[in-house]
Amino acid sequence: MFLGLVIGSVWATQKEEGMDNLKLLIVQPTDASGLRAGAQVIAADRIGAGIGESVIVSRGSPARVLFGGRAVPIDAMIVGIVDSFDIAGDTAGEEENGWKKSSG
Amino acid sequence: MFLGLVIGSVWATQKEEGMDNLKLLIVQPTDASGLRAGAQVIAADRIGAGIGESVIVSRGSPARVLFGGRAVPIDAMIVGIVDSFDIAGDTAGEEENGWKKSSG
Amino acid sequence: MFLGLVIGSVWATQKEEGMDNLKLLIVQPTDASGLRAGAQVIAADRIGAGIGESVIVSRGSPARVLFGGRAVPIDAMIVGIVDSFDIAGDTAGEEENGWKKSSG
Amino acid sequence: MFLGLVIGSVWATQKEEGMDNLKLLIVQPTDASGLRAGAQVIAADRIGAGIGESVIVSRGSPARVLFGGRAVPIDAMIVGIVDSFDIAGDTAGEEENGWKKSSG
Amino acid sequence: MFLGLVIGSVWATQKEEGMDNLKLLIVQPTDASGLRAGAQVIAADRIGAGIGESVIVSRGSPARVLFGGRAVPIDAMIVGIVDSFDIAGDTAGEEENGWKKSSG
Repeated sequence: MFLGLVIGSVWATQKEEGMDNLKLLIVQPTDASGLRAGAQVIAADRIGAGIGESVIVSRGSPARVLFGGRAVPIDAMIVGIVDSFDIAGDTAGEEENGWKKSSG
Repeated sequence: MFLGLVIGSVWATQKEEGMDNLKLLIVQPTDASGLRAGAQVIAADRIGAGIGESVIVSRGSPARVLFGGRAVPIDAMIVGIVDSFDIAGDTAGEEENGWKKSSG
Repeated sequence: MFLGLVIGSVWATQKEEGMDNLKLLIVQPTDASGLRAGAQVIAADRIGAGIGESVIVSRGSPARVLFGGRAVPIDAMIVGIVDSFDIAGDTAGEEENGWKKSSG
Repeated sequence: MFLGLVIGSVWATQKEEGMDNLKLLIVQPTDASGLRAGAQVIAADRIGAGIGESVIVSRGSPARVLFGGRAVPIDAMIVGIVDSFDIAGDTAGEEENGWKKSSG
Repeated sequence: MFLGLVIGSVWATQKEEGMDNLKLLIVQPTDASGLRAGAQVIAADRIGAGIGESVIVSRGSPARVLFGGRAVPIDAMIVGIVDSFDIAGDTAGEEENGWKKSSG
């Protein structure tokens, strides 16, 4: 998986089978310091992520196991909304955007 | 998935099993600002995307679930044609090429 | 899939199960202008591609569906030999190497 | 797989099905000299890896086979904690962080 | 698949299920000229590859088909040891490291 920041959402009327009723978000991958890390990804979201939130994205066929036998042709899914994180011994606080390290 | 701009199409007479009757488009991945983001991809299209349109492309085995039990050796599929998108609070209008942000 | 130019072939005597009788070609990914686009790939070929030809390569498990239940541990397959292509409104001619755009 | 250094861990309360009770670590891919090699990855850990340890990470659907029939939508897993390694004829010692080459 | 040079091996005592009795090698991807091409990969080896040898590596789930129903969480496998190769009309000789082109 990778860390990312939700920066937008996309709408499509003409789409493939299995893409109905999917919320699609634009995610900018980042490192733990909040710096950009690679190209933007479009990920499906079922857990209520919003613009400005830090998320964990899973890619490839693993992202699809959640749909069981249905033919859903997605390759990226938001699997968690980041609350906080530890990095090299420091503990990040409960900031909405968890990328700022506290001195704790 | 990733955002991209359809820039062309490809024809091949000699091809592998399962590649018949597939429309293959050349897609330039872009970010939400329309800037190029990585190498071009050849994606199969069944939803009528055309040159100059902004699309959503899914890669890997997820792209293949749409063909059920058939052996179709593709690894990229156009799964949506972009109508509009929100980016960091702004709403993109209904332009044919949705990459221009409106001030809405 | 991606566009590429076949630049060579490789032979291996010691190899894994399922790799027998596979023709393995070295492919340089390119964009539609013929410019290099990323690292070389070794792809299996069953459709008679040769050095100097422009091909379409599919990667990952999709490349393996062609072998049905057999355990063939490949991750890249040549799925088409390019005849010609359209790019941003122009039509490429019937040149053997289709990357040169005609003014048509 | 790739070599990496565990640099942190992440917590998420809101998450997808199948993500419960998973320890998620932030891993910085490195080469055998300890130099950074690409973007950070979030990997699941079941073998007790800790911050500062060198690990082997497996990506994609292989990372998911360990969960059998359960729908666990991860795409990266720590599959080993590095004890030592040989590189170009030298033997790395038993340092906790095995990236320093001994002259052995 | 990709071409690479075996530059080392790794040992891990603490590891995931299915990782026992696997020889893990560090492979530096190269192009056909022997130049580095991307980040090092840890690949499983069952065909006796050694340090200094040129190999063909397959990635992703294809690399796992060789283990049948067993849950082996690897994502890269050495599938061939390079004997020689043709590149753009020239034939590489039988050198142990086949990357030097002969004028043949």
